[in-house]
Amino acid sequence: MSSIFTKIIKGEIPSYKVAENDNYIAFLDAFPLVEGHTLVVPKKEVDKIWDLDKETYLGLMDFAYDIAQGMEKVIPCLRVGVAVVGLEVPHVHVHLVPLNEMNDINFMQPKKEFSAEKMQEIADKIKSAL
Amino acid sequence: MSSIFTKIIKGEIPSYKVAENDNYIAFLDAFPLVEGHTLVVPKKEVDKIWDLDKETYLGLMDFAYDIAQGMEKVIPCLRVGVAVVGLEVPHVHVHLVPLNEMNDINFMQPKKEFSAEKMQEIADKIKSAL
Repeated sequence: MSSIFTKIIKGEIPSYKVAENDNYIAFLDAFPLVEGHTLVVPKKEVDKIWDLDKETYLGLMDFAYDIAQGMEKVIPCLRVGVAVVGLEVPHVHVHLVPLNEMNDINFMQPKKEFSAEKMQEIADKIKSAL
Repeated sequence: MSSIFTKIIKGEIPSYKVAENDNYIAFLDAFPLVEGHTLVVPKKEVDKIWDLDKETYLGLMDFAYDIAQGMEKVIPCLRVGVAVVGLEVPHVHVHLVPLNEMNDINFMQPKKEFSAEKMQEIADKIKSAL
């Protein structure tokens, strides 16, 4: 069965997309830790990041760099943090999380909820900064 | 003033070193979340990861890939997670954290303590797997 991220990539599940190219996609995390929490995902469905071949992995990190640069321009934060955990969805995803304090990147925290309008506004804001 | 990581790089502060080349170094986190928690650091002292030029950043990620591959071979875990937070030490560092559960990469958790012998044994084990 396809991962939930593959379904997003195929457009079978909607998402607030931030950027996309042939091999990678970035969209807002549907269960954000903070405003602007973004996922960067390779279109190739692989469970563990270290099982990506190095070229695909470095391409993913390269793509994430550009997204993070845009995020830091428009999302108020001290800096954009990074996390790769992957114990829940078996499809590589890099979390880019705008940080104002250490606890902002604590995955044990309750997730935030924003309206559809707000999510679209955040995605558009990041997109415009890329 | 030099960061604590620059002091480690210069050998002014001891560390349990895992790997090193001209531009990057990896050593055990002195305040580990779990056994095998490793830091990957560029020798160039820059505070924020997104302020690294892309070449230095991708070189860092490339170096981290090789370290994580070694860690997954010898540290019992489901997978090696990644975090870049950087609110405490103003010198880019990538955390590589062997994960068995989500909470293993929660920086709000109390840190573990291992004896000097144990830390050396862990560092040697990872080194031997590279």
